[in-house]
Amino acid sequence: MQPISKARLEQFSDGVFAIAITLLALEIKVPHLESSYITNSIKELYPLVPNIATFILSFLGIAIFWVNHHQLTRNITTVSRRIVWGNMLFLLFVTLIPFATSVVAENAGNALAVLTYSLILFGSSSTFSILRYFVEKHQGANKVKMLRSLVGPILYTLAVISALFSIETSYALLIIPPLFYFLPRN
Amino acid sequence: MQPISKARLEQFSDGVFAIAITLLALEIKVPHLESSYITNSIKELYPLVPNIATFILSFLGIAIFWVNHHQLTRNITTVSRRIVWGNMLFLLFVTLIPFATSVVAENAGNALAVLTYSLILFGSSSTFSILRYFVEKHQGANKVKMLRSLVGPILYTLAVISALFSIETSYALLIIPPLFYFLPRN
Amino acid sequence: MQPISKARLEQFSDGVFAIAITLLALEIKVPHLESSYITNSIKELYPLVPNIATFILSFLGIAIFWVNHHQLTRNITTVSRRIVWGNMLFLLFVTLIPFATSVVAENAGNALAVLTYSLILFGSSSTFSILRYFVEKHQGANKVKMLRSLVGPILYTLAVISALFSIETSYALLIIPPLFYFLPRN
Amino acid sequence: MQPISKARLEQFSDGVFAIAITLLALEIKVPHLESSYITNSIKELYPLVPNIATFILSFLGIAIFWVNHHQLTRNITTVSRRIVWGNMLFLLFVTLIPFATSVVAENAGNALAVLTYSLILFGSSSTFSILRYFVEKHQGANKVKMLRSLVGPILYTLAVISALFSIETSYALLIIPPLFYFLPRN
Repeated sequence: MQPISKARLEQFSDGVFAIAITLLALEIKVPHLESSYITNSIKELYPLVPNIATFILSFLGIAIFWVNHHQLTRNITTVSRRIVWGNMLFLLFVTLIPFATSVVAENAGNALAVLTYSLILFGSSSTFSILRYFVEKHQGANKVKMLRSLVGPILYTLAVISALFSIETSYALLIIPPLFYFLPRN
Repeated sequence: MQPISKARLEQFSDGVFAIAITLLALEIKVPHLESSYITNSIKELYPLVPNIATFILSFLGIAIFWVNHHQLTRNITTVSRRIVWGNMLFLLFVTLIPFATSVVAENAGNALAVLTYSLILFGSSSTFSILRYFVEKHQGANKVKMLRSLVGPILYTLAVISALFSIETSYALLIIPPLFYFLPRN
Repeated sequence: MQPISKARLEQFSDGVFAIAITLLALEIKVPHLESSYITNSIKELYPLVPNIATFILSFLGIAIFWVNHHQLTRNITTVSRRIVWGNMLFLLFVTLIPFATSVVAENAGNALAVLTYSLILFGSSSTFSILRYFVEKHQGANKVKMLRSLVGPILYTLAVISALFSIETSYALLIIPPLFYFLPRN
Repeated sequence: MQPISKARLEQFSDGVFAIAITLLALEIKVPHLESSYITNSIKELYPLVPNIATFILSFLGIAIFWVNHHQLTRNITTVSRRIVWGNMLFLLFVTLIPFATSVVAENAGNALAVLTYSLILFGSSSTFSILRYFVEKHQGANKVKMLRSLVGPILYTLAVISALFSIETSYALLIIPPLFYFLPRN
């Protein structure tokens, strides 16, 4: 296999990121507002609250993946076959995030829906760590970074398991990775 | 955090802009035309008029944001963390514009629908001003430009408030920012 | 207004072209096949025939616009405000092509549907001619090319008018511009 | 016709690839989960299994086409009219892959659905071979590569024919091309 150009790998990945993040908003169901009194209409919007919360969570998730992906590919000098297919596996899970968002929005409060959502974020997060491993190994490994990149997969695994017992705990665990990302670092 | 490449920030943002602007047309409901007489069919198209008006308003809105965004990023030399996340927050509202367009199209003449639409345009407009502030500050501030960029947020705030009393006033206010943009400048 | 970079104008336009052309296939309704006998199933596909014909026509249309757009922007050295907004107006009609395709597919044999489709292609074609005029004028006009670029708008105008009398004539006129494009030239 | 720039041909094609691959996940129907017991909910997910299997097959298919397309365009020095339109014909079938995926997902176990899916993959695969032929001929032909690129079209032809007699055989044949691609090569 001839080497893949890094520019086109980034271009294709950016396309997938941009589409996935834009489709998220389509999964918020457009409400049919019956009442002409604004105070009554507002009540008709209540069922949208979990949709909007999940939309924001998924948007943040994809945005963080994009920033991390960008920082990762910066370090790439040559694109190996492993990197191409590690990237594809990661993008497979990224394209599933709008679907996962929709499953939760459609079935708010259902344990299996939260489990599916957590599982797809676990998939994105762990395949990104694998991709990072391939890239770092290709360039000369950096063990500290690999350790950091286990935080996501571990938290999402806990979210998958918690969904079986308590949806609230699972939701709480899903909120930690973005918060952790935005923590100031020394 | 390593610096983000400006080219990829633009590439990702252009992807989001292009998808959001193309999805707008999908929100115009495809009519099922019953009559085989063209004069009767035309009557069946009447309910599409508000959809088409909102489509054009949203298209113009996203197009103006794209032109302004492009002019803003031209001035960027290095991309700070603040700029990346200011841009993401802005794009979050841009991805909501097709949803907002659909809410108005689905609920023509409903006050809360117009309020939601105005609110999302207010969000896009004000987060763009915040992004502009981050960029200008990063390069050496230009106070005149910051003043200009308050026109959008203020008009959209007035549109949000008007929606509570008069939908027509709210619509009229929504049309001003694009008109203002196309005014000749000295 | 600061000059717009040509690269980003092309990048944004290519995004819109790529999304519009890919969404076309989504407008072909997925059939629900009832019969388990393949000969009966085939009959269930008959209603898809006009959808597929319109899909191919629209795909060819957008593809030809993309090739022409590409050749036009090659000649651009600086992007004027007129070119930016001429391009936006053209893209507005391009984003409506999937909608127009869907209107025809949903209402096969309806005169108003064919009229709408012809009207949107007329819009795309004539705004592209306007964009070409802005570009040529900006670079030093080439009258021969302007004449050539009236073929599309004229044929689509005839298709709009014919739709009022005979759908078949209208369809026939819609097929001529792509054929004309592929004619060998000396 | 003036020569087309290779960068923009790749940019447009990457857009189409990225959108088609991201839309695949939208074709997995979002289930409405009735039961609050997780063991019962899991049963409600059973109908999704063929959808997910087809999603993975289509994702792999588009991913492999993207890698091959990338390697092909690397060799291009000048873009001829033939290459532009060979590429467009290939992209036409790529945009149909999400539709084909949806047809199979909607009609699991239906012979005509599997036949349609196989036919569209045959179209993608054979038009890609034609594109490869145009490119190789333009650069100086390489017969070995042309032979290799017949594997896909032949297997998909067999899948089309098998669909008439045995859906299982057809499915099995559809899985071979991706497996063949990932086989180690000397």
